[in-house]
Amino acid sequence: VSDTRAGGEFLTAPPALAPRPLDEIDTPALLVDLPALDRNIGRMAAFFQGRAARLRPHAKTHKTPRIAERQMAAGAAGITCAKLDEAEVMLRAGIPSVLVANQIVGPLKTARLARLSRLGELIVAVDSLANAREIDEAAGREGVAVNVIIEVDVGMGRSGSRSVEQTLELAGLVERLPCLRFRGLMGYEGHAVFVADKDERARLAREANALLVSHADRLRDAGLAVEIVSAGGSGTYDTAGLHPGVTEVQAGSYATMDATYRRILPEFECAVTVLATVISRPAADTVVLDCGMKSITRDFTLPEVRDGDGGAEVVRLSEEHTVLRLASGRAPAVGMRVELIPGHGCTTFNLHDVIHAVRDGVVVEVWPVAARGGSR
Amino acid sequence: VSDTRAGGEFLTAPPALAPRPLDEIDTPALLVDLPALDRNIGRMAAFFQGRAARLRPHAKTHKTPRIAERQMAAGAAGITCAKLDEAEVMLRAGIPSVLVANQIVGPLKTARLARLSRLGELIVAVDSLANAREIDEAAGREGVAVNVIIEVDVGMGRSGSRSVEQTLELAGLVERLPCLRFRGLMGYEGHAVFVADKDERARLAREANALLVSHADRLRDAGLAVEIVSAGGSGTYDTAGLHPGVTEVQAGSYATMDATYRRILPEFECAVTVLATVISRPAADTVVLDCGMKSITRDFTLPEVRDGDGGAEVVRLSEEHTVLRLASGRAPAVGMRVELIPGHGCTTFNLHDVIHAVRDGVVVEVWPVAARGGSR
Repeated sequence: VSDTRAGGEFLTAPPALAPRPLDEIDTPALLVDLPALDRNIGRMAAFFQGRAARLRPHAKTHKTPRIAERQMAAGAAGITCAKLDEAEVMLRAGIPSVLVANQIVGPLKTARLARLSRLGELIVAVDSLANAREIDEAAGREGVAVNVIIEVDVGMGRSGSRSVEQTLELAGLVERLPCLRFRGLMGYEGHAVFVADKDERARLAREANALLVSHADRLRDAGLAVEIVSAGGSGTYDTAGLHPGVTEVQAGSYATMDATYRRILPEFECAVTVLATVISRPAADTVVLDCGMKSITRDFTLPEVRDGDGGAEVVRLSEEHTVLRLASGRAPAVGMRVELIPGHGCTTFNLHDVIHAVRDGVVVEVWPVAARGGSR
Repeated sequence: VSDTRAGGEFLTAPPALAPRPLDEIDTPALLVDLPALDRNIGRMAAFFQGRAARLRPHAKTHKTPRIAERQMAAGAAGITCAKLDEAEVMLRAGIPSVLVANQIVGPLKTARLARLSRLGELIVAVDSLANAREIDEAAGREGVAVNVIIEVDVGMGRSGSRSVEQTLELAGLVERLPCLRFRGLMGYEGHAVFVADKDERARLAREANALLVSHADRLRDAGLAVEIVSAGGSGTYDTAGLHPGVTEVQAGSYATMDATYRRILPEFECAVTVLATVISRPAADTVVLDCGMKSITRDFTLPEVRDGDGGAEVVRLSEEHTVLRLASGRAPAVGMRVELIPGHGCTTFNLHDVIHAVRDGVVVEVWPVAARGGSR
């Protein structure tokens, strides 16, 4: 058994290829519960069934073709990605249409973007004239056409056009450049998706979606064909999915969820956990686990204990340790195992080389988190 | 060019094996400046030159044999690790002595610990009777002896014995078990290492080191040979290194540093950065970079701009974006590159598959971050 990344032979077993019980998997291990995953995918697909807007799930959370394939099988219009590494993995896995909801900038990346355009429908978000021109030139050198949408800042304050005039100028340039195909607009209401109050969240999302659709209307008035109007995240999928004029929704976290999203989206289940082992019990009400910030993140919130209704609570996370405080009399012994729900699923998947897909307590498949590792 | 982890062919180039300029490296990319790294390693080695205590650098930050080899060449007594994956990588790279400063628990891990003990001197920290017994049994099955030190909680409130009586009981058991070799004690003053005030930091460290040495003295009174007394981190290396009775110091971050440590350790240089590209300039004073929490962490502090004395400041980090605010007139154009110093080096290295080792603006080597990926 060899691991070429480390340049040597390893004594550890490779990822399991045959089903095996959880207690044969070493910890920390990233687990995805397959029945819960499939219920989440089915529930979201049912919401979009028969609607004008279609779901194009964001794959930045799981970065894993095997999950994207399940989303496509449930009726998704394609997959959304944040990076070319993710897009390449998805296109090579046979996903027919990929939207990179981000700017792809610089000679190395734009050349790669053009090459990847041969693998399937690839659409990229642009927000500057300079970037539109360099993509056109890279596409010309490669002899391909690249699909472009314009990113609009709908209130998040990050990338994107900040005025209708700017959007018009950009779309006009994209339309004129010979190797670009203008396809539409995107605007992600990232400032709304985590707002705890459901009504306020929906209000912010409607405002953002309306701004995006108003840009689309102005482009149509100017004679441009706006096919795609892409918006929405897991926190706003229902608002964006029902908004007139929105054609695609980019929600992604719903499939596996996390401790942050489960506070605002009770209709989906947490399918992702990190399996850990108790390595120390320094006090009667305190245990230490063998996972920390290097296998489960705390950038949103601390992880939560699955089935932690008995009062088990994460009080501290260091690099390779989690400290749990427990209701008296319930502390597990050294060697026992605990499952933690990540505070933030997206950044937690990104820490792991593989996902252990679990059904009824048995690891039935092991999937590489194919696009992690400081993705480009 | 194939990437076996992802199960398919990739259009991207493999890590460079021949020197190439930075502008041929795609972003985000983890960089280590070799001259700065070597100066840091030399400076720390010089501090320990001729002292009673020796340096056993912690490799959890870089997880990279090529850096550990440089530390050994500068006189280190061995390497400290947090996990068996790290220990295995280091032993296989020829590091002659590795201390795992953590508990190794459960049948899978203890069997692996015993197997790895054949590769070189491997020492593990124990803090419970149950764990001592299971390691002894695993060592017996493998026909090896395992070196053990007792971890003492010296005030951090995480793992470790919390009383002299407990330390005595544990050491006595380790001494009696047939396949364990009692080697000494460790106690990490993690509650002290980041204290900003130098005097207060030193006071807390001295208190912790004194507690640890007092446990060692009691064990010696009981007739036990206490060879190793291991303490210290980068923030307390000088206090621990001078404390009578401390034989080893575990400092690790000093070699590459980060934005958090550079506030309290001006004698070392930041050798690690993440190279990023400007992908958007949504306002005159604002640019967005192509790196985010998936390639540079914010668990301690936000990253800082290298050479950012002109007023460039990171104001926000999302998964794949960094938002920089700039002093007027200095905003770089879309496509330009920026180097960021991570707020926390240890968790940032853990996000990357490879380190680009840079000398005078040229990538001269590419090293795998061999023990990342949800290390076990």
